[in-house]
Amino acid sequence: MAADEAQVSYEDLALLEDEFEEVDSEIMRKQYELTKPLYTKRATAITKIPSFWALVLEQAPPEIDQFIQPSDSRIFAESLLNLTVTRPELDAGGADASPRSLKIRFEFKENEDFEDTVLEKEFWYRRAKDGWVGLVSEPVKVHWKKGKDLTEGLGDAAIKLWEARKKGGDMLKKEGKEYDEVKKLVEHLQGGASTSFFTWFGWVSGRRWVSAEESAAAQKEYREKIERRKKGEKVEEPEEDEENEEEKFAANDDSDVEVHEAGEELAIGIAEEVWPNAIKFFTQAQEIEEMSDLEFEDDDEEDDDDEAEGEPVDIRALVQDKGKTRKRMSDGPGPSKKAKKAS
Amino acid sequence: MAADEAQVSYEDLALLEDEFEEVDSEIMRKQYELTKPLYTKRATAITKIPSFWALVLEQAPPEIDQFIQPSDSRIFAESLLNLTVTRPELDAGGADASPRSLKIRFEFKENEDFEDTVLEKEFWYRRAKDGWVGLVSEPVKVHWKKGKDLTEGLGDAAIKLWEARKKGGDMLKKEGKEYDEVKKLVEHLQGGASTSFFTWFGWVSGRRWVSAEESAAAQKEYREKIERRKKGEKVEEPEEDEENEEEKFAANDDSDVEVHEAGEELAIGIAEEVWPNAIKFFTQAQEIEEMSDLEFEDDDEEDDDDEAEGEPVDIRALVQDKGKTRKRMSDGPGPSKKAKKAS
Repeated sequence: MAADEAQVSYEDLALLEDEFEEVDSEIMRKQYELTKPLYTKRATAITKIPSFWALVLEQAPPEIDQFIQPSDSRIFAESLLNLTVTRPELDAGGADASPRSLKIRFEFKENEDFEDTVLEKEFWYRRAKDGWVGLVSEPVKVHWKKGKDLTEGLGDAAIKLWEARKKGGDMLKKEGKEYDEVKKLVEHLQGGASTSFFTWFGWVSGRRWVSAEESAAAQKEYREKIERRKKGEKVEEPEEDEENEEEKFAANDDSDVEVHEAGEELAIGIAEEVWPNAIKFFTQAQEIEEMSDLEFEDDDEEDDDDEAEGEPVDIRALVQDKGKTRKRMSDGPGPSKKAKKAS
Repeated sequence: MAADEAQVSYEDLALLEDEFEEVDSEIMRKQYELTKPLYTKRATAITKIPSFWALVLEQAPPEIDQFIQPSDSRIFAESLLNLTVTRPELDAGGADASPRSLKIRFEFKENEDFEDTVLEKEFWYRRAKDGWVGLVSEPVKVHWKKGKDLTEGLGDAAIKLWEARKKGGDMLKKEGKEYDEVKKLVEHLQGGASTSFFTWFGWVSGRRWVSAEESAAAQKEYREKIERRKKGEKVEEPEEDEENEEEKFAANDDSDVEVHEAGEELAIGIAEEVWPNAIKFFTQAQEIEEMSDLEFEDDDEEDDDDEAEGEPVDIRALVQDKGKTRKRMSDGPGPSKKAKKAS
C-alpha cells in the first residue's frame, strides 16, 4: 500500500472514531433517561435494607475492591447510609452536556471517624489544549476526627496544594512548600502499602487539572478540525520532535503530586460497575449469607465444630471478612455465576 | 426490620432487576442499530490496512490477551484478514430476539496451519430450567494441517464428544470413551500451561449445553412468574435442602469436559472490548510504531547502538514481541492515556 493511501485510511479512521463517540454519547444519554426512574425506585426499596451499600461494595470487582482497605470497609459497614451516582451535565441539560461527567455522593450517619455526613465528589469530562481527554476533579476535604485520618495526611495535603495553586493562579506551578509536601508524601506512600479509599476524595487528575474554560476552547478547536476533515480538507497536525513532546508532556504532568494512583478508573468503576450492578452484588452477598446459614446447620447436626455451633450469622462479620466471602464465591455451587452480569 | 418487611424489599429488588434488564436489552438493540452503519464504514476503511486485526488483538486488554499465546499471535499476524462481530438474534429479528447472542467470525488467508479460511462461532444467550442464564455455543472444528494442531487434540476431542452426545440424545451423559478422552485431556492440560486461543472454538458452556427448546420453555416460565409477581401475587420458590442443591448442580455441570476455562468471558470480551475499541487499539499500535521510529533516529544520531542502526521497523516483529510493546505502552509519554477509552 502506498503511504498516501494509508494516510487516507487513517484519516477515515479518525473521523469514524468521532462518529462512534457521538453515538456512544447518544446511547449514554438514552440510558440515563431510561434508567433514572428505576434508580429512584431502587433507592426507595433499599432504604429498608440495612448495610445495603456496604454489602454491595464488598462484592465489587477486583479493580474497585483493590482500593478498599479493611479499615475503609469498617467505616462503610458502620456508617454508610447511601451511595448515589448521577451525571451532573445531563441533569443540567444543554447542547454540549457530556454524559461522561459524574457526581458520586456518599451519605454517612454520625460517626466516630469524621465530621461529614455527606462526601460528594464531582468528575468533569474535559479536553486539554494538547488533545488529552479524561476526567478531572477538585479535591474534597474529609473532616477527620482527631487521630482518625486514614489517609495519613495525604488528603489534607492535596487540599492545601490545591488552595495554594488556585490562589497563585497557576494550577501547574511545580514549587512551594505545599507542592513539596504532597510530593514527599506521595513518594513516601508509593513505597509502602496501598493507602485508604478515602484518599480518592483528594484526587485531581490522571494527567493534570483542566479548567472548564480550557476545555471549552479545546473542544471548540477540536470540533472545527473534525468538521474541516469531514469536508475533505487536509488538516495539518503540527510536527513535533521527540524532545519537545517530552518537555510538553512533563509540563502537563502532575503525577508527582497526585495522591491517588487510579482516581479516574475508580470513579468510572463505581459509576459503571457498582452503581448499575448493585442489586446483583447485594444478592451475591445474601446468597453467601444463606450458604453460611446452611453450613452452621450442618455443624449442628454433625456436632464436629464447636466454634461455629449455633452461632448466629452476623452480616457485619461477613462484610469485614473479605477472604472468607471471596473464597466461598469462587468455589461454591452457583451463586457467583448466577448473579454475574452475562453481557 | 421484621423478616416480612425484608422479604418484601427483596421481592421488589428482584422485580427491579428484571426492569433493569429490559432497559439494558433496549439500549443494546438501539446501540446495535445506531452503530451498524459505522461498523460497515470501518470494515471498508480497514481493508486497505494490512495486519489491522492482528495489531488490534495485540493491544487487547489482559482479560483477552491472556488467552492469546505467541503461536496464536503468529497465525493472526500471518493470516488473519478480517474479524466481524454481529448479533444474530437481532439480525434475524423477532419479538424475543436477545441482543446478547453473538456471532464472531474470523477470516483467514490460505495458510500453512489449517484448511479453513473462515472460522465462525455463534453464542446463544439462553436460560436453563434451573434458572441459570448465560451463553452456550456449539464447538467449531478447526481443520488443522498435519502436525499443526495448537490445541493438542483438545478441539477435535470436544467435537467428538459433542457428536456422540448429540447422537445419543443426551447432552449430559457423563460416560463413554469420548467423555473420558476429553476429561483426561482437560485434566492433563489444567496442570500445565494455558492452551491455544483456538481451543476456544471448541467451547460449549460455562455450565452445560442448553437447547433452544429448553431455553424457550424456561424463559416462558420465568416471564410468567415475573408477571404474577408484578401483580402482587406471592410466587413460592421451591425450598431446597443443601444436598439436593448439590446433586442438582453436579448433574447440570459439565466443567469436567469443558475445553476452555473462560469461553463466555472471551466471547464477551471480543464483542464488547475488542470490536468497539478496535480503532483505539490499532492507533495505540501505530503510536508504538512511531515511537520505535523515533528511537531508531536517536540511535542514528548518537551512533551508540549498532544493533538498531538504520533498521526498518517491521510491524510483524512488533506484533510478536509482546513484552516490549507492553512495556513501552506503560512508560512512554501519552499514547496509552490518549488512546484509552475514557468512559
